[in-house]
Amino acid sequence: MTQKHLVDPSTLAEHKKKYPALRNKSYMNFGALGAMAESSMSAISSSFQHVQESGPFSGKTFAWITEETRAIKQILANAIGGKPESFALTQNATEGCNIVLWGLDWQEGDTLLTSDSEHNGVMNAVLQLCRRKKLSLQICKLAFLKSEEEILKELERGLESKPRLFMISHVLWNTGRVLPIKKMVELCHSKGVQVLVDGAQSAGVLPLNLTDINADYYAFTGHKWFCGPEGVAALHLSPASLDKVEPTFAGWRGAVFDSKGNPVGLAPDASRFEVATAPFPLLAGLADAIKVHNEIGSAGDRYELILANAKKLRQGIVNIPGLNLLDEQGGSSLVSFVIEGVSHGELVRRLEDKRFVLRTIPNPSCVRASVHYFSASEAEEFPEVLSRVLKEMA
Amino acid sequence: MTQKHLVDPSTLAEHKKKYPALRNKSYMNFGALGAMAESSMSAISSSFQHVQESGPFSGKTFAWITEETRAIKQILANAIGGKPESFALTQNATEGCNIVLWGLDWQEGDTLLTSDSEHNGVMNAVLQLCRRKKLSLQICKLAFLKSEEEILKELERGLESKPRLFMISHVLWNTGRVLPIKKMVELCHSKGVQVLVDGAQSAGVLPLNLTDINADYYAFTGHKWFCGPEGVAALHLSPASLDKVEPTFAGWRGAVFDSKGNPVGLAPDASRFEVATAPFPLLAGLADAIKVHNEIGSAGDRYELILANAKKLRQGIVNIPGLNLLDEQGGSSLVSFVIEGVSHGELVRRLEDKRFVLRTIPNPSCVRASVHYFSASEAEEFPEVLSRVLKEMA
Repeated sequence: MTQKHLVDPSTLAEHKKKYPALRNKSYMNFGALGAMAESSMSAISSSFQHVQESGPFSGKTFAWITEETRAIKQILANAIGGKPESFALTQNATEGCNIVLWGLDWQEGDTLLTSDSEHNGVMNAVLQLCRRKKLSLQICKLAFLKSEEEILKELERGLESKPRLFMISHVLWNTGRVLPIKKMVELCHSKGVQVLVDGAQSAGVLPLNLTDINADYYAFTGHKWFCGPEGVAALHLSPASLDKVEPTFAGWRGAVFDSKGNPVGLAPDASRFEVATAPFPLLAGLADAIKVHNEIGSAGDRYELILANAKKLRQGIVNIPGLNLLDEQGGSSLVSFVIEGVSHGELVRRLEDKRFVLRTIPNPSCVRASVHYFSASEAEEFPEVLSRVLKEMA
Repeated sequence: MTQKHLVDPSTLAEHKKKYPALRNKSYMNFGALGAMAESSMSAISSSFQHVQESGPFSGKTFAWITEETRAIKQILANAIGGKPESFALTQNATEGCNIVLWGLDWQEGDTLLTSDSEHNGVMNAVLQLCRRKKLSLQICKLAFLKSEEEILKELERGLESKPRLFMISHVLWNTGRVLPIKKMVELCHSKGVQVLVDGAQSAGVLPLNLTDINADYYAFTGHKWFCGPEGVAALHLSPASLDKVEPTFAGWRGAVFDSKGNPVGLAPDASRFEVATAPFPLLAGLADAIKVHNEIGSAGDRYELILANAKKLRQGIVNIPGLNLLDEQGGSSLVSFVIEGVSHGELVRRLEDKRFVLRTIPNPSCVRASVHYFSASEAEEFPEVLSRVLKEMA
């Protein structure tokens, strides 16, 4: 199926106008932070006003917060599977990973297995955990593997260290490689190893069914590919694994209280991992963002558009002298490339001056372009601009 | 000095119109959640728009986030003392407490000392910590003590358990009692005990100088008395105590990375406790909120107004049959009262129906009114409304 069969290009071009960030630049950083629709920002403003009107703290507002929280979890379940009560709202995907990392009952000398291609912020959490808990850290080297077989074999090798947890990105943030996550989860489970998935680069891109993937823990955010506001994210815990982690940071949202206000137990669902007062008016922003995407088609439809845009981009730049794509096969929305003899940081700065917004990734050092389902014109125009800037830099 | 000498009542009445929440009701829940000024909400909207205009993720936006973060820490230091680099931004005061609670190098059997009057959400964190780390929890019974001497004596008794940490609210959320925090910190330090202060009910109320108080850790939020948006709060760590706690939850904001993106150390200042992407556009809301307060006078001026309003409220209700004030002396913005033979929950619901917005506190079971510097008319009108509702309920 080609792009034009899915959604008429003029419909998509019209749709794209809903995003102010996309009007004055060629934005290709959805893997870092999404662009927000005008209506999502309005939804946030309206929520702030509503809270002032009905509260700010009142029986009325509390009922509203309860409903907003319930609603966003239902929306997330509709979008990526899983049950509403299995989502804990967090501030970002990193927090979701931290909840699991610090929630397991680690013993000194236990092993934590991860990969060489995890986000550097999440790796900071991992290193901090391993140092404080005296854990052994084992690494699967996945960055340069080509085939699914090689990846599964490397995981099998890693599992020989008998880890308690395997923490892995569904889509590698550096190369853009989509991992065979369901098979990896199966392999881990067959050895009794729990799996924490960092879904920062998959949620809002791939058509997902969290129940089918069956990871114990799946952390993701609403502020990248879903195009919601910064600060609304979630951790999904499979029903079988809810009781395998303990809350670490805790507050009024995660407990059950007796009539005297004494905490007497954990909330029965994943909300036990939620802490205290959060910017609840932002929830409406994510709800609206997902609604806007759904106007264009299903997650599957959007993923086909994304793949078509990423393919167009790869084909447009692959023959630039000195340029190497990190994942030529390309199954995701991330197109990462290395250019020999060029400072990637300087290149990105110069591209931003020309209003093409990309980013560098430190390891392997590369430039990363993120394309969304409405990024057809950026994918079309970028190769020429890149060539031009490279000539200026030569 | 009486209220009219400080600020002209008509100036205050005009000032109050800046807060939409105060237009259609008598709001007396600042201790739970502040009312936001229209300009603070506009500042947030503008920031969201600015991020879309310049980013959302770009070199330009990153520089803006860096500046917004630097600016809010300077504003907080100007408002309550301490050094800008000693503030870690958090989502709420509870998170600040959690950072310290989970950041100490606890050994099984260590003792944690706190009081019988801590916020129930924070107590959930304390209980969770004590259970998982096998700590001994000791409690100072402060709720019904009258004099400073009694309070210090009870603390001295508590310190006999040789705790590693004393966690205490500066202003008790239940009775409204203002504790002699500086003397308590001195007493703890003289015994080598660190102090974590929950400043949820003091920051934005009392004129504070964190350097002078000298607590090791002071957690507070911008969304109560400062009237900023939900989700912007901070933890202040004294320079001497910065290295005594380790980050638990960690991410890209708290680490120093080498050129390959490997985390190679902690940030040199309190930002090491910040985790990952947060709703940075909200920072402008708190900055504006504090600016709006400063238009009326210094923190000392505002505190005098607060005390005058609280006094007026107490005097207005103290003679209602069956009503008992929890802290008759009253040095804070919280006026808590018990009414014999009446359901406090039902009373609060009926008051909210009449657009007087208060809350219950579970222990000791009471109704709590929070008055701000501009709450003169609420303090004036409330006693009559309360009497009327109590008659309806009789």
